[in-house]
Amino acid sequence: MKKNCVIGQSGGPTAVINASLAGVAAAALASPHIGRVLGMVNGVQGLMEERFVDMGELLKETGQVELLKTTPAAYLGSCRFRLPDMGQDAAVYETIFNLLDKYHIGYVFYIGGNDSMDTVHKLDAYARAKGKEVQVIGVPKTIDNDLPETDHTPGYGSAAKYIAASLREIGMDSAVYCQPSVTVVEIMGRNAGWLTAASALARGKGYAAPHLIYLPEVPFADERFLADLEALQKQGVVNIVVAVSEGIRYGNGVYVCEDTQNCATDVFGHKNLSGVAKILEQKVKAAFGIKARGVELNVLQRCGGHFASLTDVDEAFAIGWQSVRAAERGASGVMMVYVRESDDPYRIQFAARDIGGIANGEKLVPRSWINQLGNGITKEFLYYAQPLILGEPEVRMDQGLPVYLSRQQ
Amino acid sequence: MKKNCVIGQSGGPTAVINASLAGVAAAALASPHIGRVLGMVNGVQGLMEERFVDMGELLKETGQVELLKTTPAAYLGSCRFRLPDMGQDAAVYETIFNLLDKYHIGYVFYIGGNDSMDTVHKLDAYARAKGKEVQVIGVPKTIDNDLPETDHTPGYGSAAKYIAASLREIGMDSAVYCQPSVTVVEIMGRNAGWLTAASALARGKGYAAPHLIYLPEVPFADERFLADLEALQKQGVVNIVVAVSEGIRYGNGVYVCEDTQNCATDVFGHKNLSGVAKILEQKVKAAFGIKARGVELNVLQRCGGHFASLTDVDEAFAIGWQSVRAAERGASGVMMVYVRESDDPYRIQFAARDIGGIANGEKLVPRSWINQLGNGITKEFLYYAQPLILGEPEVRMDQGLPVYLSRQQ
Repeated sequence: MKKNCVIGQSGGPTAVINASLAGVAAAALASPHIGRVLGMVNGVQGLMEERFVDMGELLKETGQVELLKTTPAAYLGSCRFRLPDMGQDAAVYETIFNLLDKYHIGYVFYIGGNDSMDTVHKLDAYARAKGKEVQVIGVPKTIDNDLPETDHTPGYGSAAKYIAASLREIGMDSAVYCQPSVTVVEIMGRNAGWLTAASALARGKGYAAPHLIYLPEVPFADERFLADLEALQKQGVVNIVVAVSEGIRYGNGVYVCEDTQNCATDVFGHKNLSGVAKILEQKVKAAFGIKARGVELNVLQRCGGHFASLTDVDEAFAIGWQSVRAAERGASGVMMVYVRESDDPYRIQFAARDIGGIANGEKLVPRSWINQLGNGITKEFLYYAQPLILGEPEVRMDQGLPVYLSRQQ
Repeated sequence: MKKNCVIGQSGGPTAVINASLAGVAAAALASPHIGRVLGMVNGVQGLMEERFVDMGELLKETGQVELLKTTPAAYLGSCRFRLPDMGQDAAVYETIFNLLDKYHIGYVFYIGGNDSMDTVHKLDAYARAKGKEVQVIGVPKTIDNDLPETDHTPGYGSAAKYIAASLREIGMDSAVYCQPSVTVVEIMGRNAGWLTAASALARGKGYAAPHLIYLPEVPFADERFLADLEALQKQGVVNIVVAVSEGIRYGNGVYVCEDTQNCATDVFGHKNLSGVAKILEQKVKAAFGIKARGVELNVLQRCGGHFASLTDVDEAFAIGWQSVRAAERGASGVMMVYVRESDDPYRIQFAARDIGGIANGEKLVPRSWINQLGNGITKEFLYYAQPLILGEPEVRMDQGLPVYLSRQQ
């Protein structure tokens, strides 16, 4: 008998999480094993409140799948809801599984990052423990690229492309005056420096920025930072551009941003970081008395749909599609992953990996991909990241602006 | 006898100042009246140091004009050099005009904003007073759109497009969670609110952001701001997006950003503003205890070559070209302007206007284009701005990133 499926999105927005939603939905709608395809509004939280979107209705008109594919943020809405441990609070699980039963749902697809994979892990464990006929599949999503087991994550390539293009443009902007200057660009990434490392892709013939790159993987030191700047000045670099992760920490583990501000904490206990660029700007001004500017690359680095990576969009759609194939083969308690077969020509495969080794895990930039001084990256990183930013999706335009699918009316 | 010409760029970078450079250079290279075409590196400052680029050499290869047209920032480099009054310090003028003589220069084209037009005004006045056979022509450039006499300025359309697209994407990003939130987006604009007003173009069917817009033309009041937010909350708007100019001031003339920080001052006596978004973020948190996020749209709003307006690029090229035509007709002491003939269909003409009425002048958003409450704009502004953001130039791409012409090697 056919069962229905439900798809959820969780965690922060990306440029391609909707491409994965489109991929799951399109494959599920085409599957002989699946009946209705529902989307949960605002993730697990919306599921518990029975707030659904009928994906078949949404996508029935021609062109809607393509439009959803190139829409940034999270069409279904997201949540930051952490499931309690099964032993602690069974009521939440009973509510969820009663609703799955009520809607004849046999497949749950959950698109998200580290915390969302914890949800996949727990729902699957409950289903197995209680003998429920529900398969739970995780589809990765995070600009941070910090999920274990997968070569990279959907969302990373587009963010990397946006960051690299921005650094190239900021480098050109900073170089127009002949007065010495330092521009510090702050990039997202709490513990993993993947996004900040991507700034190195901006370099090339004629483009020197960023001159220095600091990742959270290597302890930061003010004196070394200032010495690095001085060394560049002595080499005659007039306008220096620095890429720095929001999450850089001193050797004692204190975030550089904690220097002057109280970092708020979210429900997962993550510190809410910001302001590193401005803090370093002040340090540069104090040390050298020259023009310094802190630039925070804001939320557009995660949701800049007007400049996404076609490779990322296509892969995000495909991994969503493949998650339905895995479900048809009986998989549950897995996250779909990319397996890289070759850098050049770039080639990946898809696979399903046990969620146990992934949930709450974190993949950092290998120390060997960071230079010895800890102020730049190596060629290995470039070989890895370069293919992920290739190509531009055709974004529908109207009146000079990109057109996206929106639930707001 | 043929005379040579020199072109300079001055003031802050834009996405299309190089399109104007390409337009002037291409027309000058094609002109029967003009010999060599030089570019001054770093504006008047570089002219005095005899630092030149041979524009004929630069543009001789096929495709170079097109590449320069879509390159952001300022290819020749810029300066912030204020010419002294003629009576105060004649030596500077003697230096400049001796060099113009040395290089047989009969035409000076200077591309820039308010302060640069002051330079055009002074150089022309000196040439006239001393009977020098040098024509000085201003080509407008500023994202701020605050130059008098011209319908709009080259650079504004691209910045407006970038800002509107960003606001649309930030609006979608902010709406993914169902927790109430306020996102305050800070936009450039010291005294004129043209750029912040452009955020309104983001709205449309399905796109509600920005919900509130505050320009420097109307005095800002904390209580009214908080009351505006409360009114929206009562209407059921959960995720509110606010567009605010960096230059908003209280009724007593104090900048909102001066609330907590010392604003530095540049050589023109302009205050260096930043931080309004973060200040308002704090006020929202304190008043409502809800999630608030300050986002500063950074330098990319002026140099985002990867998402410029084709209308702006083409017009910027054309006004550069027309400035050479004006010079051939004997004009000097003028700035080229756009004259709008019609909104729909959108149509402009070019003209040369006396620089005296322009230099150091400033055009603000008319009060009648701002709504009565001072928290939004009227349809008249939309009719005015909509045509300026239309179309996307074809940007050359390589390895997933935009390719620009750069003097760095």
